[in-house]
Amino acid sequence: MGIPHKHADMLVRQSHPYNAEPPLHLLQQHLITPIERFYVRNHGNIPEIDTETFRLSVSGLVEQELRLSLDELASEFPTATVTATLQCAGNRRDELMAVRDIPGDVPWAAQTISNAVWRGVALRDVLDAAGLRDDARHVAFLGLDEIDKDGQIIHFGGSVPIEKACQPSVLLALEMNGEPLPPEHGYPLRVVVPGYIGARSVKWLSQITVQSHPSTNHYQARSYKLFPPHVDADSADWEQGLMLGELSINSVIATPQQGETLSAGNAQLSGYAMAGGDRTVARVDVSPDGGQRWVEATLLDGEGSDSPWAWVFWEADVELTPGQHELVVRAWDSAANTQPESVAPLWNFKGYMNNAWHRVRVSVEG
Amino acid sequence: MGIPHKHADMLVRQSHPYNAEPPLHLLQQHLITPIERFYVRNHGNIPEIDTETFRLSVSGLVEQELRLSLDELASEFPTATVTATLQCAGNRRDELMAVRDIPGDVPWAAQTISNAVWRGVALRDVLDAAGLRDDARHVAFLGLDEIDKDGQIIHFGGSVPIEKACQPSVLLALEMNGEPLPPEHGYPLRVVVPGYIGARSVKWLSQITVQSHPSTNHYQARSYKLFPPHVDADSADWEQGLMLGELSINSVIATPQQGETLSAGNAQLSGYAMAGGDRTVARVDVSPDGGQRWVEATLLDGEGSDSPWAWVFWEADVELTPGQHELVVRAWDSAANTQPESVAPLWNFKGYMNNAWHRVRVSVEG
Repeated sequence: MGIPHKHADMLVRQSHPYNAEPPLHLLQQHLITPIERFYVRNHGNIPEIDTETFRLSVSGLVEQELRLSLDELASEFPTATVTATLQCAGNRRDELMAVRDIPGDVPWAAQTISNAVWRGVALRDVLDAAGLRDDARHVAFLGLDEIDKDGQIIHFGGSVPIEKACQPSVLLALEMNGEPLPPEHGYPLRVVVPGYIGARSVKWLSQITVQSHPSTNHYQARSYKLFPPHVDADSADWEQGLMLGELSINSVIATPQQGETLSAGNAQLSGYAMAGGDRTVARVDVSPDGGQRWVEATLLDGEGSDSPWAWVFWEADVELTPGQHELVVRAWDSAANTQPESVAPLWNFKGYMNNAWHRVRVSVEG
Repeated sequence: MGIPHKHADMLVRQSHPYNAEPPLHLLQQHLITPIERFYVRNHGNIPEIDTETFRLSVSGLVEQELRLSLDELASEFPTATVTATLQCAGNRRDELMAVRDIPGDVPWAAQTISNAVWRGVALRDVLDAAGLRDDARHVAFLGLDEIDKDGQIIHFGGSVPIEKACQPSVLLALEMNGEPLPPEHGYPLRVVVPGYIGARSVKWLSQITVQSHPSTNHYQARSYKLFPPHVDADSADWEQGLMLGELSINSVIATPQQGETLSAGNAQLSGYAMAGGDRTVARVDVSPDGGQRWVEATLLDGEGSDSPWAWVFWEADVELTPGQHELVVRAWDSAANTQPESVAPLWNFKGYMNNAWHRVRVSVEG
C-alpha cells in the first residue's frame, strides 16, 4: 500500500494496516508537525470515500436526527480551528515491551505523537443543531474503515463523555495544517478530541450516536483499557479495566539520542512534553545523573505554542563530565501530577500509557 | 487555646495557630469524618464573628456589588449540598522532611485529609446574582482570620479560576455534617472547593472579589507554590513556581501501621485514596514486596461514596511469609495518572504535594 504523502524516513511499524511514526529528530524539528511526518495509527484499511454521496449521520438521544453532506457541514456551521496534539495510548510501548513481552501490538517508540492545526466545525454546534436529550451522557463515533476482527468486519469506533463532547475545542475536522485531510488521516472527515488518547479522534467519521453509555465498539469496550501488571490477555475481564480517555503527563528527550557520544562540558538537551485533559505543562525537569540532581528546562515559544491543547517543546543545558551518564526528563502538569520513575511497575498487557521518566544513556568523552 | 469540639487523641502539631490531624486509625473508621476528627489547618487566630452584623461582600468584575447577611444568603439562594474531601497541600510532608529538612512548616503526617457533607449555597448562584463581567477570570476569597506576617496583620486569602468557581459543586458552606460550621472550620461561612488543595477553601469568608488575575494574597502568590528540588527558600523566585490548584492522585495505607508485627498468612490492608480536579479514583494497587508484585484492591461502598468529590476507602488481602516486608499502595485516577515511586525526587522546599507510593514496613512472625 503506497502512502504518497509520507516522509521517506517514516518508521513503518506495519504495512497492512499502515502504522508509522517519524524518527524523533525529525519530529522535534517543527512545533506544528508537517503532515508528511505526522504519525499514523490505523487498525484497518484506508477507505476510499465518495464525497458526493457521503453523509454524516447524527442520531440516538437527539431531538432531530441529522444527515449532513460535507457541503452542508462546511456551510451551515461556523468554522472552528484548534491547534492540538494527538498522542497514541501506545506511545513508548517499546519500553514496556523491554520489561515483558506484549505480543500482537505495534512496538511504538516515543514518536506516536504529533501536533497539527485542525480546521472544521465544533462538534457541539452539530450536537446543538440535533438537540441533545436530557439523558444524553456519551457521544459515540464510528468510522468507515473496515477491520477484520476474528473473521468479522467491523468499523473503528469510540466515544467521549458528553461534557467533553460539548467543549468548543472538540472538532469535526475537514483540514489539517491548511490542507484537506490526507486519506490516511481520515479524509474527508475525522473527530479531533484534544487532551484524549488518539483512539478517540475517530477517522473517516460517518456516524455520531448520542447515547446513555460509552460506545460498545471493540475499540472502546475491549481495547484501550488499562489493567494492573498481574493481569494478562488470558485473565483479563473486559468488564473491568480503566477505560482510557484523558492523557496523562508525559515528556521525552529528543536530543541527544540514545547511546550518543558527546564531548565533556555543556550539553543541550531538547524534547517535548504533553499534558492531558484540560491540564497544561507546568514545568519540565531534567537530570544529568539518573534523577539525583535536577535543573529546570526552558519551555519554548513558537507558532501554536499558545494553544492549551498543544505539546510543549523544551530545552535545558547540563554540564557533563567524562564517563557514562543517564539523562532523565520528567514533566509536571498544572494539577501537580508528575511522571512515575520506572517503567516496570507500569507494565500492562496491552502496553498503554507509559509515562515513566524518559531516560537517555550517553557516553561523554574527555 | 481550647478546641472544645476536637477528639482527645488529635495530634496537635501546633497550638498557636491551632493545627491538628487525627491519628490514621481514627481517620479510617468513617467515610464521612466526624467533625471532632476532621483535620484543622490554620494560619492565624480563630476569629469570633458577630453573625448579626456579618456581611459577605461580592465585588470586582461584577455588574452589581452585593452585601449579603447570613439570613439573606440562606434564604435567597437554593440550598446546595456536596460530599467533598479536603486535603492539605502539605499532607505527607513528614516523608519529605525525612529526605531533607523543611524548616518552619508543620510536620504533617498522612492525615491532613478528611471528608464531610457540606451544606450551603452554590458559589455560582451568588456570582450569577452579582452578574459576571466578560473580563472575569478568577474569583478571590478573603477570610476574617488575622495572621501576623513579618509584623503586618493580613487575612488568609486565595482564588480559583472562573471555570472552577462556576462549577455547581463549589459551595459557600454554612454547615458540615448537619451542624453549623464549628469555629475552627470557618464559622459562620467558608468556601469549599472540591478537588483543589485545602488552602483554596477559605474559612471565615467575608469577601469575594471577581478579578482578571489570581489573588495577590500571600497564600496564593508567595506560598502554596511548587518549586523544583534544586530551589530553596533563599533562591526562590515567587514569580515562578507552580501555583497549586487541583490535587494530584494520592493513596495511603492506614492498616497495618508502620512498624507493626503481624502473623504469617493472610493480612488485610486498608486505607484511603483521593483524586484531584474532576478526576475520580479508578484503581488502587497494593504490593506486599516493595512494588515487585501487585494485587488490585477493592474499592468500598459506603455513605457518600457515590460523590465524585469524595475520597475512596479500599481493602486488599495479601499473603505474607515470615520476615520483613514493605507494603506499598499506589492509586490511579480516571486520567491514568498514577503516583511516583519515591519521595526523594519530589522534595520541594515548602513540602507540598507528596504523593509518592505510600510504604509501610512490617515484621511478620512465623
